[in-house]
Amino acid sequence: MSTIQGMPNLGPGLRLHLNENTAGCSPRVLDAIHRVSADDVATYPDYEAAVRETAAHLGIDPDWVVLTNGLDEGLLLTAIGYLTPRAPESLVALGATPVASNGQTEQIVVLPTFEPYLINAKALGARTVAIPSDADFAFPLQKVLAAITPNTRLILINTPHNPSGRPVAESDIRAVIAAAPHAIVFIDEAYHDFQGVHYLRFTREFENVIVGRTFSKAYGLAGIRIGVVIAPPALLEPLRYVMPLFNLNSVAVAALRASIADPGFMTWYVGQARESKALLYEALTRSGLPHWPSETNFVLVNFGDRLAEMVTGLRAKGVHVRDRSKEHGCAGCVRITVGPVEHTRTAIAALEELCAKR
Amino acid sequence: MSTIQGMPNLGPGLRLHLNENTAGCSPRVLDAIHRVSADDVATYPDYEAAVRETAAHLGIDPDWVVLTNGLDEGLLLTAIGYLTPRAPESLVALGATPVASNGQTEQIVVLPTFEPYLINAKALGARTVAIPSDADFAFPLQKVLAAITPNTRLILINTPHNPSGRPVAESDIRAVIAAAPHAIVFIDEAYHDFQGVHYLRFTREFENVIVGRTFSKAYGLAGIRIGVVIAPPALLEPLRYVMPLFNLNSVAVAALRASIADPGFMTWYVGQARESKALLYEALTRSGLPHWPSETNFVLVNFGDRLAEMVTGLRAKGVHVRDRSKEHGCAGCVRITVGPVEHTRTAIAALEELCAKR
Repeated sequence: MSTIQGMPNLGPGLRLHLNENTAGCSPRVLDAIHRVSADDVATYPDYEAAVRETAAHLGIDPDWVVLTNGLDEGLLLTAIGYLTPRAPESLVALGATPVASNGQTEQIVVLPTFEPYLINAKALGARTVAIPSDADFAFPLQKVLAAITPNTRLILINTPHNPSGRPVAESDIRAVIAAAPHAIVFIDEAYHDFQGVHYLRFTREFENVIVGRTFSKAYGLAGIRIGVVIAPPALLEPLRYVMPLFNLNSVAVAALRASIADPGFMTWYVGQARESKALLYEALTRSGLPHWPSETNFVLVNFGDRLAEMVTGLRAKGVHVRDRSKEHGCAGCVRITVGPVEHTRTAIAALEELCAKR
Repeated sequence: MSTIQGMPNLGPGLRLHLNENTAGCSPRVLDAIHRVSADDVATYPDYEAAVRETAAHLGIDPDWVVLTNGLDEGLLLTAIGYLTPRAPESLVALGATPVASNGQTEQIVVLPTFEPYLINAKALGARTVAIPSDADFAFPLQKVLAAITPNTRLILINTPHNPSGRPVAESDIRAVIAAAPHAIVFIDEAYHDFQGVHYLRFTREFENVIVGRTFSKAYGLAGIRIGVVIAPPALLEPLRYVMPLFNLNSVAVAALRASIADPGFMTWYVGQARESKALLYEALTRSGLPHWPSETNFVLVNFGDRLAEMVTGLRAKGVHVRDRSKEHGCAGCVRITVGPVEHTRTAIAALEELCAKR
């Protein structure tokens, strides 16, 4: 059987291909999961405490928060809420006009991008205007601004950007928000914890901004699926309307609460990622491998015409990395997760052995 | 704060309002959850074993199975797959024609119905043709057949039916499937384990049938969120396309596998529900309260003009039941979950005290 649900299992090895925390999770999270009761399993989850604690953690009101089954679900709900033909009332209030009966709603994304952005729009029959990033993955501000039309309903900005690791400048984000007051600007901050910069305040400063967060990356809960969508209540209304009533399971609720109660684990991991990046940059420079400075827990490396050989070689040495070479601006490139220093040293050793072989 | 995500918490008491298993879950499921590792938490889930084991459990091929985050997600994905304007190739192959540019795709449901059926279509801009059930919740076959048009994309049949507990006759289901070869007939079998009858074979016998299942009811995993959508691979393609890549969390995967490995728990619970129904019917008859024979783990009871008093009185005695009185054919009615005999006896005692008070 080929993989029919999820991703192919690459087998044992160091998982540096999906930006997971390879050190595991906070012991407090594991403890909370191990204390789940038969009643928790058999009864529908209660979200009140988790929503309140998440809101307090973010410093916002509880009704500005939607917990989602991974940020992937948050992205899908946003697409359903904003890309179907009838504009939701919250957008009409901001000046959105009906789309012509033979027209399509539109979203704008910057390439290379997270594939679900494209899939969600296509599944809903919306048009995606995909703008290639400028050299070295710079945000193509002028092209994005030029692509905005009355049919634009959603503009997705991922900062820091996956797979380049580069942040989008605050001034660029501001310019996009100001140029599309009739559309939602969704700021996907899946990796913001590594940068230490975020734009949550834009949800208060502007009327058309939604911010997406995840506990999969810095918090190390990829297997538990917890995303957070943050916006003024009116903008969240279309998402809440269609969201399955019990979208996080009881165990995710327990894990989320324990994770928020142990911020030290996240801080430790972010520190490890920072050290790891410094080590990896040095090694890559020694080996003459082009790469981009990253504000995340991964680094994009250009193996050039040695791409296939390096990916295979690393796998043979038990190190899984992600081939992103098919995407815009990424010819020859792989993405390598940089988390715990110990794991980065393993990856560097494998990399250097392969480079020395040449 | 009013409830902003999920359902209101009714406080402590016997939860007979959501058809959960009030005896908890299989000890093997709890054990599996308590053995989850930090790696399971921190890495994206692998579904292969769970899909294979679910397929074997159902006696079908793995590529006929999609695991969903509760059947609610399965219903939403089906709506996205089949109710957006462009007909998916799998339906075009069955004779679906494009919907006029100023028209809408349509779905047919029978009232009273599960609210997400209505919400999903509305969120996607599709039209719902809602057919009221006949007297005593009989399936309104002729009206359903008359409602089928070239724009019909989806017909939802829930059997046994929530909230009446009545099954839909096999001949009625066959007639609907035959009359709408260009549309999907989705058979929602959330409660079929209690009846012992199911229509999984219709997915092989016909080309336009999808069956939905859940582990929330007979298997007692409501808090874990596991649904299963079953159909020929071509019909599942539109669902797989838009489904978030990692939609079940690692813990749900572990719970599902343990649940399948312990069918005895489900059999025990179904037996308890059967005994409970017999006891409740007797008590209701003694008290002169109209009710409907049920093939599920709940019974719809007509309290007539004593509705509010009975719901409040039961709550005061620590028994939560579900007011369904606002729905078609349900004036004066509540739905009472019937699971473990011990809990049904508690409910009956409370009910009889309230009836005796009059």
